[in-house]
Amino acid sequence: MVEKRKTKGLEKLAKLIRYFILASTTEAGSGHPTSSLSATDLMTALLFGGFFRFDVEQPGHPNNDRLIFSKGHASPLFYALWAASGKLSEQELLTMRKFGSPLEGHPTVAFPYVEAATGSLGQGLSIGLGMALNAKYLDKLPYRVFVLLGDSEMSEGSQWEALQLAAHYELDNLIGIIDVNRLGQRGETMYGHNIDAYKKRISSFGWKTEVIDGHDFKQIISTYKKALRTKDKPVMIIARTIKGKGVSFLEDMNGWHGKALNKEQYEQALKELGEIDKTIVGKISGTDDMKPDKSTPQKVGEVVYPQDKMVATRKAYGNALKRIYPQFPDIVVLDAEVSNSTYSEIFQQAYPERFFEMYIAEQNMVGTALGLQCRGKTPFVSTFAAFFTRAFDQIRMSQYSNANIKFSGSHAGVSIGEDGPSQMGLEDIAMFRTILDSVVLYPSDAVSTEKLVGEAAQHMGIVYIRTTRKNTPILYNNKEEFPIGGSKVLRKTDSDTATVIAAGITLHEALQAYEEMKMEGIFIRVIDLYSIKPLDRSTIQEAVHDTKAIITVEDHFAEGGLGEAVKSLLDTFAIPIYSLAVRKMPKSGKPGELLDYEEISKDAIIKKIKEIL
Amino acid sequence: MVEKRKTKGLEKLAKLIRYFILASTTEAGSGHPTSSLSATDLMTALLFGGFFRFDVEQPGHPNNDRLIFSKGHASPLFYALWAASGKLSEQELLTMRKFGSPLEGHPTVAFPYVEAATGSLGQGLSIGLGMALNAKYLDKLPYRVFVLLGDSEMSEGSQWEALQLAAHYELDNLIGIIDVNRLGQRGETMYGHNIDAYKKRISSFGWKTEVIDGHDFKQIISTYKKALRTKDKPVMIIARTIKGKGVSFLEDMNGWHGKALNKEQYEQALKELGEIDKTIVGKISGTDDMKPDKSTPQKVGEVVYPQDKMVATRKAYGNALKRIYPQFPDIVVLDAEVSNSTYSEIFQQAYPERFFEMYIAEQNMVGTALGLQCRGKTPFVSTFAAFFTRAFDQIRMSQYSNANIKFSGSHAGVSIGEDGPSQMGLEDIAMFRTILDSVVLYPSDAVSTEKLVGEAAQHMGIVYIRTTRKNTPILYNNKEEFPIGGSKVLRKTDSDTATVIAAGITLHEALQAYEEMKMEGIFIRVIDLYSIKPLDRSTIQEAVHDTKAIITVEDHFAEGGLGEAVKSLLDTFAIPIYSLAVRKMPKSGKPGELLDYEEISKDAIIKKIKEIL
Repeated sequence: MVEKRKTKGLEKLAKLIRYFILASTTEAGSGHPTSSLSATDLMTALLFGGFFRFDVEQPGHPNNDRLIFSKGHASPLFYALWAASGKLSEQELLTMRKFGSPLEGHPTVAFPYVEAATGSLGQGLSIGLGMALNAKYLDKLPYRVFVLLGDSEMSEGSQWEALQLAAHYELDNLIGIIDVNRLGQRGETMYGHNIDAYKKRISSFGWKTEVIDGHDFKQIISTYKKALRTKDKPVMIIARTIKGKGVSFLEDMNGWHGKALNKEQYEQALKELGEIDKTIVGKISGTDDMKPDKSTPQKVGEVVYPQDKMVATRKAYGNALKRIYPQFPDIVVLDAEVSNSTYSEIFQQAYPERFFEMYIAEQNMVGTALGLQCRGKTPFVSTFAAFFTRAFDQIRMSQYSNANIKFSGSHAGVSIGEDGPSQMGLEDIAMFRTILDSVVLYPSDAVSTEKLVGEAAQHMGIVYIRTTRKNTPILYNNKEEFPIGGSKVLRKTDSDTATVIAAGITLHEALQAYEEMKMEGIFIRVIDLYSIKPLDRSTIQEAVHDTKAIITVEDHFAEGGLGEAVKSLLDTFAIPIYSLAVRKMPKSGKPGELLDYEEISKDAIIKKIKEIL
Repeated sequence: MVEKRKTKGLEKLAKLIRYFILASTTEAGSGHPTSSLSATDLMTALLFGGFFRFDVEQPGHPNNDRLIFSKGHASPLFYALWAASGKLSEQELLTMRKFGSPLEGHPTVAFPYVEAATGSLGQGLSIGLGMALNAKYLDKLPYRVFVLLGDSEMSEGSQWEALQLAAHYELDNLIGIIDVNRLGQRGETMYGHNIDAYKKRISSFGWKTEVIDGHDFKQIISTYKKALRTKDKPVMIIARTIKGKGVSFLEDMNGWHGKALNKEQYEQALKELGEIDKTIVGKISGTDDMKPDKSTPQKVGEVVYPQDKMVATRKAYGNALKRIYPQFPDIVVLDAEVSNSTYSEIFQQAYPERFFEMYIAEQNMVGTALGLQCRGKTPFVSTFAAFFTRAFDQIRMSQYSNANIKFSGSHAGVSIGEDGPSQMGLEDIAMFRTILDSVVLYPSDAVSTEKLVGEAAQHMGIVYIRTTRKNTPILYNNKEEFPIGGSKVLRKTDSDTATVIAAGITLHEALQAYEEMKMEGIFIRVIDLYSIKPLDRSTIQEAVHDTKAIITVEDHFAEGGLGEAVKSLLDTFAIPIYSLAVRKMPKSGKPGELLDYEEISKDAIIKKIKEIL
C-alpha cells in the first residue's frame, strides 16, 4: 500500500520532469530530449524514492551521495530533476543553453549541483570511481556514488578500465545505472536491446548486475534497495528503456537524437503527457552530518642534496612527494603500473594508504584523479610523459571542471635513449600547454624538482611536471626558491652575444656549450626556463634587449613546445629567435648520440651560435 | 611419431631463440629478455610449426599472414625469430638498440618484418583488427592475423574496444595470443596467474578462448590447429607462461622486468641452456600467391557548388569522399558513431562496403586505420575534432609506422555554439601539428574542402582536415586549386595597413571586418591560411614586408595553434604579430556570442586593428 502510494508519487514527479525536459529543450531550440526521457524514471526514483541522500542546502557536504551523468547529453534531465526538487525555478530552467546560463548544453561546474563536467562520453564512471575510492579508503564515509551511463558510451574502452578497477578495489559504494535505450546518435548501438550482452560482459568484470525494465517503478525501487545492500562489489543496474519514453512519436524512433521539438510538436507532446501538477516538489533524503578526519599540515624537512651528486629529476619527484606529504596531507598519488620508473614508489613505500595502483589504464587514472579532487584531494598522477597522450581527452575535460590535478610525466624526450620513440615524450609540453590556465614545469635538477613539486602542491589548478630519465648534476643550492612563472639566469656577463634558453636535459647541454665557448672568449647567456607556462616575461625581454639572438633548445618536437612558447610571449622581436628541437624521426641509440642527431646537443648549440656570429 | 619429431625440432629452435634473446640484450646492455623468454615457445611454434604462412622473400606480399607484437618490449624475441629463420645474421642481431640499427628497442618499421611500430601498450590488437577487416571484407584473401599480447596490457581499455569490434565483425581470421606471465613492470599484474579471469572476460566479449600451458609444445600445437579451424569468431589463446622461462634465476622472479643480464649472469644462463645448435634454421611455411582485385582509378566529376549557397565544410567533406572515391579506390572510411555529424554518412550511403562503423571507441578506430593502411588502404577517419584527443597516443604512434592516414575532425571551435566546451575541438591543431611531417588543413568553404580532401587522398602521410559545424558561404570558384602548403590572399590593395591571417570560421569574420573597415577607408589584407602545416612562407613574408602588423585569428586555444604556427615560421619579425585566439573558459551560447566573447569575431578584429593604427 505504502509502495503503491510511493509509486504514484514518483509517477507524478516523472511527468513533471518530462514536462521540464520538453519545455527547456524546445525553448533552447536544441539539446537532447529523447536521451533524457529514457532515463527519467530511473533518476526520478533514485532522487525522490528515498535512495539518494543529499543535503540540498550544502551540495559540497562531504557525506553527500554523489550523482554523475556520464551521459552528459542528458543534461535536460539533470536540470529538470533539480527543478523538480525546487532548487531551480522554471524560469531559470528555461535559460538552458543560453549564453551566461549555468545550465550549459552539457553539464559543467557552473551549476553547483554538477560534480564534474561531462559530455565527452565514457568518463563519468572513472570520476565516480575516484569519489568512491575516496569514500572507502580515504574519508571513510558511508556516502555512495551513482553514475548514469548511456548504452552507446559502453563501447569506450575507458569504461572497461573503470569497471575492472572498481571491482579490484571492491567498491560496493559505487552504483552504475545503464540507460539501455537501444539507439545511439546515428542508429542502433552495437548491442541494441540485447541486455544480456551487457550483463555477461559486466558480470565477467566482477560486478554484481541487475537487469530491469527502466520504466517500471516497482522494479526500479526494489533494485535500488538490493543495490544498496550489496557488499564487496560494485553494482551495475542495466535498465532496458525506451528512447523518447512518454511521447509516442519519439518513442524508440531513430532520427531523434539531439533534436528539440518545435512548437507544434511540443504542444502535441504536452497533450500526450496530460495534466502536469506544478505544485508538487520532489523531496531528496538528507544525510548524516559526518565529516572526514582532517590531518593538520605539518612542517616538513628541508631539501638536502649533496652538490656533487648525480640525481635523476624523476627520482627527486618521488623524494619530494614523500618529503612534502605531511605539509600537504590532501595529497594522493596514482600511477599506471610504472611507479618504479616514475619513482612514485618512493611515496608508495612511505604512505601506502595514500597510493593507488591504477595499472596500465591511463584514461581511467586521470578520470579517477578528477573524482578524487572533486572530494578535496590533491592527486599527483604519474606515468611516462608519452603515455599521458592516452588520456588527453580526460585531461582536456578536467579543465572544464576547474580541476586541481598534478601530472608528472617521466622519460621525456629522445634522451631516454635505447628504448626508442614509442617511449619518448615528445609532445607532452604541447599537450599540457593547450589546457587553459595550466602550469607547465620542467625542472633540470633534483633541487628545482623538489621545490617545484612543492609549488605544484600549493597551486590550485592543473600542473604538469616533466621529468628526465637520466641522472643529471645538481645545479642549485638547496635553499634556492623556484616560483611558478619564474626562470633562472645561470650564466650572464656584460658581453653576452646570444642567449640560450633551455630546460631539462638541454639545459645541461647549454651549460657545457657555455664552458666550451668561454674558452674561446665567447660568452653566452644561459637561462633555465623551468616554468614553461606561465613564462617569465621580464627575464626573456631583458635577454632580447641585451643579446643579439635567442636560441631555444628543447628535447621535444618543435610544435607547441618551449620554443613556440617563448615566441608566443612576444608580439615583436627585432632579434632573431632560433629554435633547436626534435625535427627528425627519433630512433634508438645512446642519449648523447640522439641529442646530437636531433641537433639539440652542446655541439648543436655551439654550431648555431657560430652561425649567428 | 611425426608430432614428436616436430616437437623436438621446435624445442631445439626455441633453445636457439632463447640464446639469441640473451645474447642480443646482454650485448645491448638493456632490453626485455624476461618478457621475451615467456613467449618464446608460443612464437616458435607459431612461426616454425607450420601455422604461420609467409613468403619470407616478399614480406609485403598481400596474402602473407601478419604477426604483430602488441607487447612491443618483447622485440628481442621478434628479432630472434627472424634470426632463427635465417633472415638476420647473428652479427646483425647484435646491433640491436644501437644507433642506426633497424633493430630498435621497440619494433619500428625500420625492420622490414615489422608490420607497424608498437611499444605503447594496448595498440597491437587494433592494428591486427584493421588487417583482419581488410582480409575479410576488402581484399577478400585467406591470410590470418596473429597478435601477441602481454597480460599487463590487457588493462588498457583500447584492448576491450578491439575485442568487442572484432567479435562484431566476426573476424575468424584474427587470432590473439596472451602471454600471461603474471608479472608486470613493477610486480604482479591485476590478475596474476588467474587465467580464468581472462577467459571469462574475453569469452563474454564474444571470442572463442583457449587456455593452455604456454611452454607445452603439444598443447600449443593442438591449440593453433583448433584456432585455425574456428569459424565466425576471433580466437584468443590464453597461455599461462613463466616470465624468464628457461633461466632458473629469472623464472617467475620480480625485479627482472626490462633488465639485461650482465656478462657473468649471461654466462651462467648459457650454461643452463646447454648446447645450442646454431646450424639449424627455422622454416616458415609459404603462402599461396593470391592478390586482391585492384580497381582502376577513374576520372571523377568536377566540384560544382552554386556560388550563392551556404554549405558547411563538414558536409563538403562527405560530398568530397563520395565524389573522389572512384579516383582513389583504396579509400576506406571509418567513423566513431557520428557519421551523421561528420557527414561521412554521405560516403557510407554511396559505398557501404567501404565504410566501417567503429562505434564510440576512438582509440581502436585509429589503431584499425593503421592496420588498414599497412595493407595498402587509404583510411579517412572522422569524428568530432575534440574526440581525436581520445586517440592521441594511437595518432602519435602511427607516425612511427610512417602511416598514411587522413583524419577529419568536425565541430571545431567555440563556433559550434550551444553544445558547450565538451564538444568543442580547441586543441586539435596543436595536437596534429606535433606529428612529424604531418599536414594540417583547415578549409573555410565547401570548394576548398572538396579540393583539400582530394589533396589529402593524393598525399602519402598523416593529414588532418578540420571542419566547421555551421553553414558558411562559398568563397571560391569551383575551378580554384588548393595545393598543400599554399594559402590564398583574398583581399589585397597597395595600401593595406595590417594583414589578417585566418582560416575556417574566423576567415569569414575577417572578410566581414574587411568590408566594414573599407567603408571607413581602411584597407586590410586578408589571407586564407588553409594549410596550417606546412605553411606558405612566401605569402606570409610578403605580408610582413608590405603591412604594419599581422593579426592571426583562430577558433582554437592560443597554444600550438595557427598563431604560434605563423610565428614559428619566422626567425625575426620586425612588425608585431598579434594572436587572437580562445583564451577564456568557453561556454554554451550562440556561435556569434561565443566568437565575440572569445574576441575572435569581426568586431574583435576591427578593435585590434584600430588599436594598432
